Amino acid sequence: MSYEHIRQAAFEANMQLPELGLVLFTFGNVSAVDRNQGVFAIKPSGVPYNELSVEKMVVVDFDGKVVDGTLRPSSDTKTHAVLYKHWPNIGGISHTHSTYATAWAQAQRAIPIYGTTHADHSTLDIPCAPPMSGKMIKGDYEYETGFQIINWFKKKELSYEESEMILVSNHAPFTWGNSAHKAVYNSAVLETIAKMATLTEQVNPKAERLKKALIDKHFERKHGPGSYYGQ
Amino acid sequence: MSYEHIRQAAFEANMQLPELGLVLFTFGNVSAVDRNQGVFAIKPSGVPYNELSVEKMVVVDFDGKVVDGTLRPSSDTKTHAVLYKHWPNIGGISHTHSTYATAWAQAQRAIPIYGTTHADHSTLDIPCAPPMSGKMIKGDYEYETGFQIINWFKKKELSYEESEMILVSNHAPFTWGNSAHKAVYNSAVLETIAKMATLTEQVNPKAERLKKALIDKHFERKHGPGSYYGQ
Amino acid sequence: MSYEHIRQAAFEANMQLPELGLVLFTFGNVSAVDRNQGVFAIKPSGVPYNELSVEKMVVVDFDGKVVDGTLRPSSDTKTHAVLYKHWPNIGGISHTHSTYATAWAQAQRAIPIYGTTHADHSTLDIPCAPPMSGKMIKGDYEYETGFQIINWFKKKELSYEESEMILVSNHAPFTWGNSAHKAVYNSAVLETIAKMATLTEQVNPKAERLKKALIDKHFERKHGPGSYYGQ
Amino acid sequence: MSYEHIRQAAFEANMQLPELGLVLFTFGNVSAVDRNQGVFAIKPSGVPYNELSVEKMVVVDFDGKVVDGTLRPSSDTKTHAVLYKHWPNIGGISHTHSTYATAWAQAQRAIPIYGTTHADHSTLDIPCAPPMSGKMIKGDYEYETGFQIINWFKKKELSYEESEMILVSNHAPFTWGNSAHKAVYNSAVLETIAKMATLTEQVNPKAERLKKALIDKHFERKHGPGSYYGQ
Repeated sequence: MSYEHIRQAAFEANMQLPELGLVLFTFGNVSAVDRNQGVFAIKPSGVPYNELSVEKMVVVDFDGKVVDGTLRPSSDTKTHAVLYKHWPNIGGISHTHSTYATAWAQAQRAIPIYGTTHADHSTLDIPCAPPMSGKMIKGDYEYETGFQIINWFKKKELSYEESEMILVSNHAPFTWGNSAHKAVYNSAVLETIAKMATLTEQVNPKAERLKKALIDKHFERKHGPGSYYGQ
Repeated sequence: MSYEHIRQAAFEANMQLPELGLVLFTFGNVSAVDRNQGVFAIKPSGVPYNELSVEKMVVVDFDGKVVDGTLRPSSDTKTHAVLYKHWPNIGGISHTHSTYATAWAQAQRAIPIYGTTHADHSTLDIPCAPPMSGKMIKGDYEYETGFQIINWFKKKELSYEESEMILVSNHAPFTWGNSAHKAVYNSAVLETIAKMATLTEQVNPKAERLKKALIDKHFERKHGPGSYYGQ
Repeated sequence: MSYEHIRQAAFEANMQLPELGLVLFTFGNVSAVDRNQGVFAIKPSGVPYNELSVEKMVVVDFDGKVVDGTLRPSSDTKTHAVLYKHWPNIGGISHTHSTYATAWAQAQRAIPIYGTTHADHSTLDIPCAPPMSGKMIKGDYEYETGFQIINWFKKKELSYEESEMILVSNHAPFTWGNSAHKAVYNSAVLETIAKMATLTEQVNPKAERLKKALIDKHFERKHGPGSYYGQ
Repeated sequence: MSYEHIRQAAFEANMQLPELGLVLFTFGNVSAVDRNQGVFAIKPSGVPYNELSVEKMVVVDFDGKVVDGTLRPSSDTKTHAVLYKHWPNIGGISHTHSTYATAWAQAQRAIPIYGTTHADHSTLDIPCAPPMSGKMIKGDYEYETGFQIINWFKKKELSYEESEMILVSNHAPFTWGNSAHKAVYNSAVLETIAKMATLTEQVNPKAERLKKALIDKHFERKHGPGSYYGQ
């Protein structure tokens, strides 16, 4: 049993957060999963990015229990664990408090699909899970945050493989993907989408969503069977 | 037949996009044309800027067919091809999803000419082509995007030699010029104009356009026969 | 009697302000206290950050009188002195004119607690002390600024150990903590909170404050007896 | 007759503009005067900052005629000349199209004095000269821009020694001071004041100006006879 590969992946992905301007101090965490071993590596709690190392990544199972590592894992670890346990095809998760995406979470609004930058990554509004109940909060809070995300996807009939981003009301965004690197990529894309949507509504308070035909076209050219984006 | 000069020009111009803060990840592409050979060099699709090289630029003809190069060209290649084919005096084209210009495109608004920063580069509002029809989108989309731009210029009786910038509704800006370098210059100027216009309306929702006399003066001192700007 | 340790602490903390993008030119100052000696070290007045050195820090007592150092201390020195004198458990104070926090101070509004980024650092709105009276201003102005802060905490029944940030109307923020480093950390957090709150209200003018249960949860996981954030 | 000292001063001050984030491409110019010789050195027109050198600065007299230098001077040279000619105690002038200050100029609004950041540098609203008449624009435009500034100061009974900043409607800011360096310093301060005022009105549309007592206090502590700011 070796965890080096997920520690390496989690370390590199975490280090992208400050490079991409997505975090202040320690406000974020990324994890990378090994499905065969049923564990993931995640940032240790409260450690500044410039003090991180591959070895400091903490290895945790899908119940949030530490399997390997000397530091305490991110306080958001149980949220990651729940998502890995219930969504079998994701390889990495990223959580930031990036400014614009967090503002939409605090505003408790889904982000409308106003343009092709958005449509290139999702054919739907970016969902915003509603505030958690007092009972959920007082209970196993981070664990329940994971369920709040999963339940909102169920209620909205969303696919976690097609929509890789969510806002949690009053909190901040979570994103995921087939790797930790892709999860962080989605964090950066979401922040850009959130900023563009904010400015779009400022420039035109009556701005309208994309036509369905355009949504489908942009998504398909990146993701469809006849996709022609990338190499 | 050598394509080295347009590959070099396209490479350098593409590399300016991240330097000028105009792109996130791979969200942009610039091309440089050789009129004698009837071809242009353009960024390969989905390749990060830090992995670009002169050799990786793809050479394409005015119908969008690859003439030289091993990678797939930008997914927006056909839009570039249409513009080169119909506008004989442009030397380069730049396409970005820069934040403020894209917000105006998403808001489906032309950018009013509020100041001399704008007038130094265009005597008119920055045009915004309307959303494309479902038929155009479902057809040869990127090809039709080029026609949407050209048709809007015709309808508005604009000259592509005097107005070197356009917004495409719900999508993003395209700019051009006598070289790839100038096209990128225009992308940066447009982003600044878009940001200033956003803030101008925030500070004064009833802000008024420039007087005609001032528009003419600023444009002529840079572009008119008695121009006295630059060396 | 040696002041080297507080000079060093104050120097390092002051140098963080430009690194964190919290100051333009000389618009800010940080101090570090030695409770045993009853003195603190503070930035000299009007000296650019790139000309600062450990030796240039000025050592002052709790009445604002210079004890050691050849330069004149920050013009805000008496405000620091009052806070150290009346709040026995603070180790450092930071004062900036950071853009968003200053805008809220100029707007004379407390910053509502809209999200967990805020709740991780304070369970209450960030207070905003009202404009000072003409009499206070014409008197010993910087000295009175300190009392304006302390009196507002008394009136609002706030604890300076739980709330480590305040806005002074028409002026700018002051923050503090158990060290100069922590005080600067709070300055950066406050700027982020202020920016997020501005954007939250832009995205949703009817945005609502956090539920009490969530406020308590986030604060307790960092600060409570069963805290599980950090190492 | 040597112009080396003003060329050096103008060069260094011009190079500060991109460092301070106040210009895109060539959108700005700074000059430094030699009162004894009745000349000033100014940036050459349209030359990028990374190609500037001390030798390239152009020396011009107070009528805007080139006295020394091989390049064409900034297109705004006559505006500088008029200000030097009529305001005998200024040593340098800076002109930028910095984003927020330009937005206020485009909005045709003076910047209200909302806080002490502003009051530390001016006791009054930052004036905004109204749009120039068609006659002035069609005449000797840049020359008339200088008179527009001077006439607005006369009409508003402002002192150019107390107020070192102005916005010209639909154009952009001009600032000055006892040196080229101070003029650029004022450009940066003005941009910050403009951004803070924009955000102040966003956070509180009914924000009120500073009390007179506070304005006087802040200005006097920096500039009055009993000033105690700086060394």
